Amino acid sequence: MSEHSQYQSDTIIALATPSGIGAIGVIRLSGPDAISLVNEVFGGKDLSIQHSHTIHFGTIKDVKQVLDEVLVSIFIGPKSYTRENVVEISTHGSAFIIESIIKLLIRKGARPANPGEFTLRAFLNGQLDLSQAEAVADLIASNSQASHQVAMQQMRGGFSGELQHLRDQLIHFASMIELELDFGEEDVEFANRDDLKGLIYQIQRILHRLIQSFEQGNVMKNGVPVVIAGKPNVGKSTLLNALLNEERAIVSEIAGTTRDTVEDHMIIGGINFRFIDTAGIRDTEDIIEAKGVERTHEKIKQAKLIIYLVDPEQDVEEILEQLKYLESLGIPFLTVVNKQDLVTIEFEDQLSVISYHPIAIGLSVASDPGNRQQATDNILYISAKNKTGIEELKSEILRKVNLHSINTDDVLVSNIRHLEALQKTEESLMRVLQNIDQPITSDFLASDIKQALYYLGEITGQVTTDDLLETIFSKFCIGK
Amino acid sequence: MSEHSQYQSDTIIALATPSGIGAIGVIRLSGPDAISLVNEVFGGKDLSIQHSHTIHFGTIKDVKQVLDEVLVSIFIGPKSYTRENVVEISTHGSAFIIESIIKLLIRKGARPANPGEFTLRAFLNGQLDLSQAEAVADLIASNSQASHQVAMQQMRGGFSGELQHLRDQLIHFASMIELELDFGEEDVEFANRDDLKGLIYQIQRILHRLIQSFEQGNVMKNGVPVVIAGKPNVGKSTLLNALLNEERAIVSEIAGTTRDTVEDHMIIGGINFRFIDTAGIRDTEDIIEAKGVERTHEKIKQAKLIIYLVDPEQDVEEILEQLKYLESLGIPFLTVVNKQDLVTIEFEDQLSVISYHPIAIGLSVASDPGNRQQATDNILYISAKNKTGIEELKSEILRKVNLHSINTDDVLVSNIRHLEALQKTEESLMRVLQNIDQPITSDFLASDIKQALYYLGEITGQVTTDDLLETIFSKFCIGK
Repeated sequence: MSEHSQYQSDTIIALATPSGIGAIGVIRLSGPDAISLVNEVFGGKDLSIQHSHTIHFGTIKDVKQVLDEVLVSIFIGPKSYTRENVVEISTHGSAFIIESIIKLLIRKGARPANPGEFTLRAFLNGQLDLSQAEAVADLIASNSQASHQVAMQQMRGGFSGELQHLRDQLIHFASMIELELDFGEEDVEFANRDDLKGLIYQIQRILHRLIQSFEQGNVMKNGVPVVIAGKPNVGKSTLLNALLNEERAIVSEIAGTTRDTVEDHMIIGGINFRFIDTAGIRDTEDIIEAKGVERTHEKIKQAKLIIYLVDPEQDVEEILEQLKYLESLGIPFLTVVNKQDLVTIEFEDQLSVISYHPIAIGLSVASDPGNRQQATDNILYISAKNKTGIEELKSEILRKVNLHSINTDDVLVSNIRHLEALQKTEESLMRVLQNIDQPITSDFLASDIKQALYYLGEITGQVTTDDLLETIFSKFCIGK
Repeated sequence: MSEHSQYQSDTIIALATPSGIGAIGVIRLSGPDAISLVNEVFGGKDLSIQHSHTIHFGTIKDVKQVLDEVLVSIFIGPKSYTRENVVEISTHGSAFIIESIIKLLIRKGARPANPGEFTLRAFLNGQLDLSQAEAVADLIASNSQASHQVAMQQMRGGFSGELQHLRDQLIHFASMIELELDFGEEDVEFANRDDLKGLIYQIQRILHRLIQSFEQGNVMKNGVPVVIAGKPNVGKSTLLNALLNEERAIVSEIAGTTRDTVEDHMIIGGINFRFIDTAGIRDTEDIIEAKGVERTHEKIKQAKLIIYLVDPEQDVEEILEQLKYLESLGIPFLTVVNKQDLVTIEFEDQLSVISYHPIAIGLSVASDPGNRQQATDNILYISAKNKTGIEELKSEILRKVNLHSINTDDVLVSNIRHLEALQKTEESLMRVLQNIDQPITSDFLASDIKQALYYLGEITGQVTTDDLLETIFSKFCIGK
């Protein structure tokens, strides 16, 4: 990793806390001069002779002007986040003070950090592997129990260990095969082909499980896309508000922690649900009516769940027709009757007949009358306005989405970059298996195994390029 | 202060950093159980046996689920901000994580802190006096060198020491006079009347200086109110943008520190200027035209400076008339000719004749021809669009505002509560002086001196009520 060493010879600085109004702000420095730079402007104890992991009260002075009374935390490398010397200055949370102190330290020789540069250094210095470093950004962005869990698992090692072990074994085979090449014409075989096949089968099983986990991992990380469909004025936005309001109340319990716009996403049972907002859906107020519109259609197809909201004064035949359309999409859906108080016995009867028909529940139900109860269970009666039936709807939404369990201890892949690398690894190993029993030279085997190693290494960062690092870390926030 | 002791028996918790996206968040706890509560959920070293001012890496766990990997800072009272046990938990900056950890610790027994409650405890526990505690909020809100300086001076002791000294001497006299009362009929005089007068004169000089300082202190803290006046389309908003843009560029140099809306205020030479926004001014686009409108008139009168923007194609007689109006307001003003490139020699000549007239420069200028240069100097030629003359305008704005020096070491009063208490102290002392040589009983003297002591004590908090504390600390942010 010597090609990255230029990153680490200087000392970087950034605000690590969000900007805005708060009691305190934390300015972070990392690099060889972190402690000595701060010491130059610190009024208090001599910071250069303090132990690691200690905190010191004093002032930050620009010549004789006191910029702030601060607490300075000292971390002496390698016992720090970046494994370099790190200093954190805890200041009063004034933008003016923070800016003044950062400017002062830049004048003294610190360099403004790039986005994610602290974590990049942690990676380059071997504190974290690349997938762990990526998980740091995911962790900061996590806004639900599910996304938090996926990121935390990944940051704390996740599949790093598993992949590392597989990679080490593959490397062993690769070197054996390389050795065969050295012997050229002689017909030696250092790498036992059956053992190699056994290893590849084993790796493929793990790769397969990881690749399969992406669907759940991705949904846990990025949220479940949901579309609420229905005729105009059926109460879609009232329902959205009814679902949102309860969550909002929970969020505001803890003053000081506010969420970003919750308008189009909400957390139900620890899982983030994203309500898909398309111009089409909003404008026509009815995605089903707008089914001819290609763009809207595309958006609907991204949904993992459709909530089909029905008005009890609606024509039942029309409902049946729309259910047929939903059925044709192949996406799980829930039939929800709003305006519960307007439901007539006649409507309920007609609907239960329809819902007895397999179409209405979005899944095949045998025409066995014993399934009738099961079928009608798939129709929910609510009042979005009076907020009745909302809890039942939430349970049903969770049941429909059918994430196996968000408390799984399984390692989940949630990063599309990792998914692609895993798929490419799998393809390379498929080629090895195809060729292993063919009368070809070891060159081809070696080349495919090296390809597999390359892709595996990309995930954890044994193999990186500056471009890849740039792509990954530029998405971080500054100060991390 | 035993009446406040209920505040301090429990352990409070709050997010101390701004909410929003950032690398880290800091959760702060203060109270007898701060360390033991965190220890209960901490996976790492036993926090209960650690030294003060040390930092510990570990996890925060809810049962067995890892909520985050954190750094925990331990401060053992009285060596802490509140003089109580204080713990700061530095987490990844995810709203979900922060909320989860705060909820967990509340479940364990912590109580969500009220706004300013950490600083309230610091005050109640004698770490800060009341004026210093108030300065903490001012410091956090400070957004310019001037407001920062006023708040910092006050937080670091400011006039607390001075007032304390005066108060101690007054207390001495009050007790002497009380003693005289004890002797009742006997004509004893423990308190030397001449010494008392001497002390009061001395106190009055200091009070007078502090009261006088309020004008400057207030402007440094809250900004200089400025009105830009002129005919419609003379280029007021272009000028505002020209002034703003340069500052914006400076601000954005340090990524991560963003200012709140800079739309209507900007910092010039370390001083915050507030551009007064009145519906009147905005709607009519011409405050001078709107001079009949009472509300606008009132707003203009609050200004410390009026920038009178002139169009070179404007009728010179009209300019003269408007200058007369501005002159009548008694507020410093600057005549600024915009659209510099349209200025004709004729216009310049006419204007220099006018400006030779004392009215044009907003100050009396003797009709001595030697003043002609001085007078014409008071007209600035700029182009808001081409951004020429903007720097000169800024210098002239600073000169006009005439803050003695923002680098003054003088203690400035910037808080209206303090101003009022100082004025009431002064009034009480005036009554003491009026009565001291009158043949009245010591009761009256004692009563007025006690009044003075009461008001002085209100500033630093020797005298407080729950209402006063409530009023002061409710304006703080949560977590401070």
